[in-house]
Amino acid sequence: MNTAATGGLNRLTLAGSTFVRACRGQAVPHTPVWFMRQAGRSLPEYRELRAGVRMLESCRRPDLVTEITMQPVRRHGVDAAILFSDIMVPLDAAGVDLDIVAGTGPVVAEPVRTMADLDRVRPLDPGAVSYVGDAVGLLLRELKATPLIGFAGAPFTLASYLVEGGPSRNHTKTKALMHGDPELWHALLARLAEITLTFLKVQVEAGVAAVQLFDSWVGALSEADYRRYVLPHSQAVLSGLADAGIPRIHFGVGTGLLLPAMAEAGADVVGVDWRTPLDAAAAQVPGKSVQGNLDPAVLFAPWEVVEREVRRILDEGRAAPGHVFNLGHGVLPETDPTVLTRVVELVHEVSKR
Amino acid sequence: MNTAATGGLNRLTLAGSTFVRACRGQAVPHTPVWFMRQAGRSLPEYRELRAGVRMLESCRRPDLVTEITMQPVRRHGVDAAILFSDIMVPLDAAGVDLDIVAGTGPVVAEPVRTMADLDRVRPLDPGAVSYVGDAVGLLLRELKATPLIGFAGAPFTLASYLVEGGPSRNHTKTKALMHGDPELWHALLARLAEITLTFLKVQVEAGVAAVQLFDSWVGALSEADYRRYVLPHSQAVLSGLADAGIPRIHFGVGTGLLLPAMAEAGADVVGVDWRTPLDAAAAQVPGKSVQGNLDPAVLFAPWEVVEREVRRILDEGRAAPGHVFNLGHGVLPETDPTVLTRVVELVHEVSKR
Repeated sequence: MNTAATGGLNRLTLAGSTFVRACRGQAVPHTPVWFMRQAGRSLPEYRELRAGVRMLESCRRPDLVTEITMQPVRRHGVDAAILFSDIMVPLDAAGVDLDIVAGTGPVVAEPVRTMADLDRVRPLDPGAVSYVGDAVGLLLRELKATPLIGFAGAPFTLASYLVEGGPSRNHTKTKALMHGDPELWHALLARLAEITLTFLKVQVEAGVAAVQLFDSWVGALSEADYRRYVLPHSQAVLSGLADAGIPRIHFGVGTGLLLPAMAEAGADVVGVDWRTPLDAAAAQVPGKSVQGNLDPAVLFAPWEVVEREVRRILDEGRAAPGHVFNLGHGVLPETDPTVLTRVVELVHEVSKR
Repeated sequence: MNTAATGGLNRLTLAGSTFVRACRGQAVPHTPVWFMRQAGRSLPEYRELRAGVRMLESCRRPDLVTEITMQPVRRHGVDAAILFSDIMVPLDAAGVDLDIVAGTGPVVAEPVRTMADLDRVRPLDPGAVSYVGDAVGLLLRELKATPLIGFAGAPFTLASYLVEGGPSRNHTKTKALMHGDPELWHALLARLAEITLTFLKVQVEAGVAAVQLFDSWVGALSEADYRRYVLPHSQAVLSGLADAGIPRIHFGVGTGLLLPAMAEAGADVVGVDWRTPLDAAAAQVPGKSVQGNLDPAVLFAPWEVVEREVRRILDEGRAAPGHVFNLGHGVLPETDPTVLTRVVELVHEVSKR
């Protein structure tokens, strides 16, 4: 794999960044901060840029990906950028007929429920996502010393969309398939793990400084089911990136009972939602750095409340070898972005060493 | 309070029921089983009865409440009936302008966000829910030896509907109010606790054999926030029923990190969703009985899977002083009711002692 990216700073330099050092549990001048879904609907400049452009199209255009990814970096002064993408991008590129429908989410034309259906989920040709590599290249030139985090959805969450045919509250069909046809289930998840790994490798080769594997829905499972039906596949993705030598962040919502298992999947940094305090999380995943856990809903409370919560989290985060400040879930679309900017300033100021 | 109910068996007799004995951790001939939302849309006879009748109207008519409550008892042979009601019933009776909209859920005309708004949530006059007492009376005659569980929503969940104005995924306004205006928040929850207690006392005086306090959304909170903003109010409800001498069940979804706190709120039986195995739950709430935790989605898998899960749960349930078999959340509307009947038979057969 490349260690230097075209025109940007090389990985050696980025490895010295506050963000990457915190991921590795190394001493940092201040706690780094970024926000899940920082690039997105909370920003008026994003809504303007996306007007009339469908989600998947915006993910396929390197110029748009670059601009959207840069917007929160410029505005908030966060310590890391996250590649603007959608978890469905690699499936789209792998030939699955799908769309991201505004107000609904991903909609899959023909859900996957049989071995024959699985044939329609082809392995991912890296060439089919070359636009992602191109976007990373453009971004490295713009970002300079700010590290770029690569991004992919994890096999379970992708499977849920494929099996249900869209977003689902109860994951009924997914769980029925998982329990009822383990052979098909494992074949599907192995395929999705392969696609995800290929997708992340494209990003790694183009020069991202870290990756986040996002398992949005995995909190719907018990630990036993997670270990039996999901862990081996998330592990295949994360261990497939071990040689890249960059931090791997692994996150899901409602995973208070899954943190040790998700760490075992091969995370260097365990993402934590707002339900588990960081000191409690750190005790469960010894040696790992942690990321989280400001409740995105708290950003709608008066500033004194936000400030109190930020200070509490910085305090509790000291229990881990490294702490990356973040929300406990993505930025909500109605969030006032000026509050996010103030959070970045506060985190930097309070954590200065 | 009355110990005997008009025409039905008296509490002394019902106290000997398998269900009540399991709630109390006493020896039982077999593990009792009932299903949250057993009376409802999974049953064709329910859908027929409800055709053209609005939800709140069906809750206000003792004849309909009786018939709907009886349907799953007749069909499945469950060990307990649960009073057909809706968590919004006492708020409707307390003067809040609301409706239950099919496909959406509760919709509140004027959300509660200020002290002035709170005035619109009046204390509950027991006379305003006399139809619930009437329904309980009718039910006791029909049910004979099958115990009837009373039912109410818990203060946090009610507050969430009142503050948001309807169902909410992120509870943004609720949390902003909770953190941002604790005085109003506590006044609101105290009022809701009072209403809930009045509502449950009407049911207790009419002769229910147990109550379930249902806190649907409380899993959205961290333990610290639960203890600070919710626990005292749920405690006010449950401790207000201590003298009734009947088992109090307390349940919420996604509460894997809240079980000890919810037990402290005054539960005799702690309800557990499908994420926490019953033996793990039992270890966290010593001395309490447990109820749960079959994943409602598992009912969509082949029967062998259902059977394996039922046996696992019966096995793990032995770790608690008492185990009431139930789902880890309500019956989903699309569930095949014949599977529920088979689960009842299996639970009875496997757990026979």
